[in-house]
Amino acid sequence: MTDERVEFSEISPSEFFYRNRDLAGFSSPSRALYSAIRELFENSLDACELYGILPDVFIRVTPLDLYTTDSDPKAYLIEVQDNGFGIPPKHVPKAFGQVFFGSKFQLKQSRGMFGMGGKMAILYGQITTNKPVSITTSVDGVQAFTFDILIDIQENAPIILKKSSHPAEGSTGTTVRLALNGDYQRASQKVREYFKQAAMVTPYANITFVDPYGRLIIYERGTKSMPPPSKEILPHPYGMDVEALRRLIRQSKEDIMVKFMSKSFHRVGDRVAKKFLDYVGFDQNRDPKSLSNDDITKFIRALHEYDNFLQPDASCLSPLGKENLMVGIEKELGPEFVAVATRPPSAYSGFPFIVEVGLAYGGKIIPSGTKLFRFANRIPLLYDEANDVSSKVINEVDWKRYKVPQNAPIAIITHICSTRIPYKTVGKEYLADRPELERELKNAVREALRKLKLYLSKKNSIAMVKRKLNIYSKYLPLIAKFSTELSGAKRLPRYDRLLNRKQIQGDREDDTEI
Amino acid sequence: MTDERVEFSEISPSEFFYRNRDLAGFSSPSRALYSAIRELFENSLDACELYGILPDVFIRVTPLDLYTTDSDPKAYLIEVQDNGFGIPPKHVPKAFGQVFFGSKFQLKQSRGMFGMGGKMAILYGQITTNKPVSITTSVDGVQAFTFDILIDIQENAPIILKKSSHPAEGSTGTTVRLALNGDYQRASQKVREYFKQAAMVTPYANITFVDPYGRLIIYERGTKSMPPPSKEILPHPYGMDVEALRRLIRQSKEDIMVKFMSKSFHRVGDRVAKKFLDYVGFDQNRDPKSLSNDDITKFIRALHEYDNFLQPDASCLSPLGKENLMVGIEKELGPEFVAVATRPPSAYSGFPFIVEVGLAYGGKIIPSGTKLFRFANRIPLLYDEANDVSSKVINEVDWKRYKVPQNAPIAIITHICSTRIPYKTVGKEYLADRPELERELKNAVREALRKLKLYLSKKNSIAMVKRKLNIYSKYLPLIAKFSTELSGAKRLPRYDRLLNRKQIQGDREDDTEI
Repeated sequence: MTDERVEFSEISPSEFFYRNRDLAGFSSPSRALYSAIRELFENSLDACELYGILPDVFIRVTPLDLYTTDSDPKAYLIEVQDNGFGIPPKHVPKAFGQVFFGSKFQLKQSRGMFGMGGKMAILYGQITTNKPVSITTSVDGVQAFTFDILIDIQENAPIILKKSSHPAEGSTGTTVRLALNGDYQRASQKVREYFKQAAMVTPYANITFVDPYGRLIIYERGTKSMPPPSKEILPHPYGMDVEALRRLIRQSKEDIMVKFMSKSFHRVGDRVAKKFLDYVGFDQNRDPKSLSNDDITKFIRALHEYDNFLQPDASCLSPLGKENLMVGIEKELGPEFVAVATRPPSAYSGFPFIVEVGLAYGGKIIPSGTKLFRFANRIPLLYDEANDVSSKVINEVDWKRYKVPQNAPIAIITHICSTRIPYKTVGKEYLADRPELERELKNAVREALRKLKLYLSKKNSIAMVKRKLNIYSKYLPLIAKFSTELSGAKRLPRYDRLLNRKQIQGDREDDTEI
Repeated sequence: MTDERVEFSEISPSEFFYRNRDLAGFSSPSRALYSAIRELFENSLDACELYGILPDVFIRVTPLDLYTTDSDPKAYLIEVQDNGFGIPPKHVPKAFGQVFFGSKFQLKQSRGMFGMGGKMAILYGQITTNKPVSITTSVDGVQAFTFDILIDIQENAPIILKKSSHPAEGSTGTTVRLALNGDYQRASQKVREYFKQAAMVTPYANITFVDPYGRLIIYERGTKSMPPPSKEILPHPYGMDVEALRRLIRQSKEDIMVKFMSKSFHRVGDRVAKKFLDYVGFDQNRDPKSLSNDDITKFIRALHEYDNFLQPDASCLSPLGKENLMVGIEKELGPEFVAVATRPPSAYSGFPFIVEVGLAYGGKIIPSGTKLFRFANRIPLLYDEANDVSSKVINEVDWKRYKVPQNAPIAIITHICSTRIPYKTVGKEYLADRPELERELKNAVREALRKLKLYLSKKNSIAMVKRKLNIYSKYLPLIAKFSTELSGAKRLPRYDRLLNRKQIQGDREDDTEI
């Protein structure tokens, strides 16, 4: 037997995702169109929010051949323009033309996580239409740069076809134009739903969408108060592994353990560091670079076992806030009743997270049954709901306990923000059921349900009081009349004060039970 | 504003998966243990089957510290040994220590698809236990090689700690030993279920599993007939994109279009190629290397529109076959009734696939309700069932039409084999709902249900006949007796011949309805 029967080969990261595009949500012309639009749009929001700029995002989808009468799937041009920070020109080619190169690899809350979405859109566009992506960007508002780029998939490297510079005329930000083979007819419902939900959680953004038929959909900014930009944090001891510890030791300039710990770890000061070093039995003045392989193993095990580290600080996170969530829900769903429950910060494997849950009941928009709206770091998640941790929680809650009538019109809105969302797919469709996440979600949903129960029971008792008053208002005049006659008095007693006339009259016409 | 506010960086493929291990099914100690076992086991089966070797696989999981009384999660040693083809020693370091290097990047049916699973197991083991992976392998049965390897995650490169060679004593194949932090207590149920289901679809394999308590579970080979090894095929025109076409042109030695097509595409001969070139309006003698950018775009569009290409040939696939599936189901589920439906080969985006469905009813093992067993290229899929295309199909089938009683004890087994399974996650948990796949699954499930309906209706009518005979057998003697008395005859008529005595007697005791 010779080696020839086993063929080994190496592929580039671009090649891997090119071959396995189902992984990133680019599995069909309709899905690819949807994914491309949302990935570019989310990059635009990040480019504004992370730098404290109120977002103004313009999205347009046009058939590439304007005169075509072909049915879908066909080539579409996608344009996404923002007023964000812009991209320094030296980084543009790699940022758009090289997989695993990007600005999303820090420990901080952002919509993007894998640095993959935009590149997958470009790659998919390139292989289906044979056209380059065009990027125009300016960081200073003075000079703008335009690049036309293709990706060399086998080499995972950008090919610059054209580069030019021109006056920016005062505006910073980035515009991306790319062509891809898409099916808008099938994607349109999801695309519109996506923007509607996105507007619900970014009420401080102006979003303008022009669809392929030229129809304009505008979500106007409802508030100028934007959550403060999220901050980068140090890693928490509970999230450490051997590899991460080695890297910290290599990078650190500190030469004693206690300083190394307090400078490298999130929420570890000298006092906590000393206590921990006592616990694990390491000299606090030892040089971290002197740790042997076995020392590192021992250190890591102790980090995970030690109970006295402080929980991650969530000030690096940027939740929606009760007000924003409430406003968003009322604006988009117009319900009869809203409750919002926000959990205190928590953590899984050293990553801080915050759960926010909204519950809307009744009104004209919400249909019968329970509808779930899922958000993660302010991204609406529309696909693969059945496997998501939120679905799991809602299925497991004991609804009867909260006396919610069957098929009541209810919308549940869940939002999770974290420095690291535990997505199960590169396409960011749904979240893993980490136990810590599940617990916080369950508590928030229960809290919201308790509020609904209170509201419903109040509503019921008011209805009951009204019904009683209705009965009184029918019989009291008769009783008054008879007793007046019996007593021989001439004037009826003033019983009408006993009834709150106004309230009863309003309801009488509808109330057919009596 | 300076560039410093935007930090760009490059990460290696190892780094990407190290950071995002949820993507590959390594999200918790229990899940990681499960995923590591199955990935190594599946690599072993591939290493046998792809070379026509009857698999003999030995798996052992042991607490790394044999004397520990610690509760889970804790460090476990996983050992997986096979009698497969072995790995040429020059390829060992990269095959185990470099992400995106491997032997699974061809267009042929195999369990592995991403070349990721084994490496994720090694990576996870390394970062949680700080230990190298150890690989022993022999391709010729004469000389064996042992490597101890760590992965340099930032560089995506193997670090060889130790290398040695020794006599193989006649046995080829590979043994992998790695340590990882796992939770067997939580994983055990899934692990055992996994092996049980794996045995169901590989009845020609000997599988030996020793669990951490030293308990031995053996699945013995039930047959020596193994499906023929799957073959590599050329790409089908329907699966082409611009990138793939460019590569084929670059690699091809043919200098006229008609030959280029017939040598590069699956199921395209000179005749089909000529017809297509007429259709698209290209000279059949043109040099493929002379195609311009626009020509390539035009060519690709035409490839997708043209209706007269032959469907992909499924002879490259290796389905289970009716017999094997039937045997597997009967062995593992012991049902009252089995039906198997196999669909003719079909294709999605140029990738051939075959759907096989088994339906088992009744017996002692299957509980009430419908239980789904999913397989893809002979891998049992145990996680994320709710989003799988098979779940979707089963939910959408009109069960009433097949007169299946509510809560009947039914197991549905679906197996899809393809040169490219459309997994939605790197962890190979579930399949995308490609319309072609959905259609074939639906047809197969319906076919199996029709068979069940027939069986159930036959069973009912037999029961009815029996019941009638039971009534006759009670009343006939009396009628005979009375009519004999009335007629004054002395001997009873021989009515017993009218009844099939034997059949009735057998049932009478159970039949309490009369």
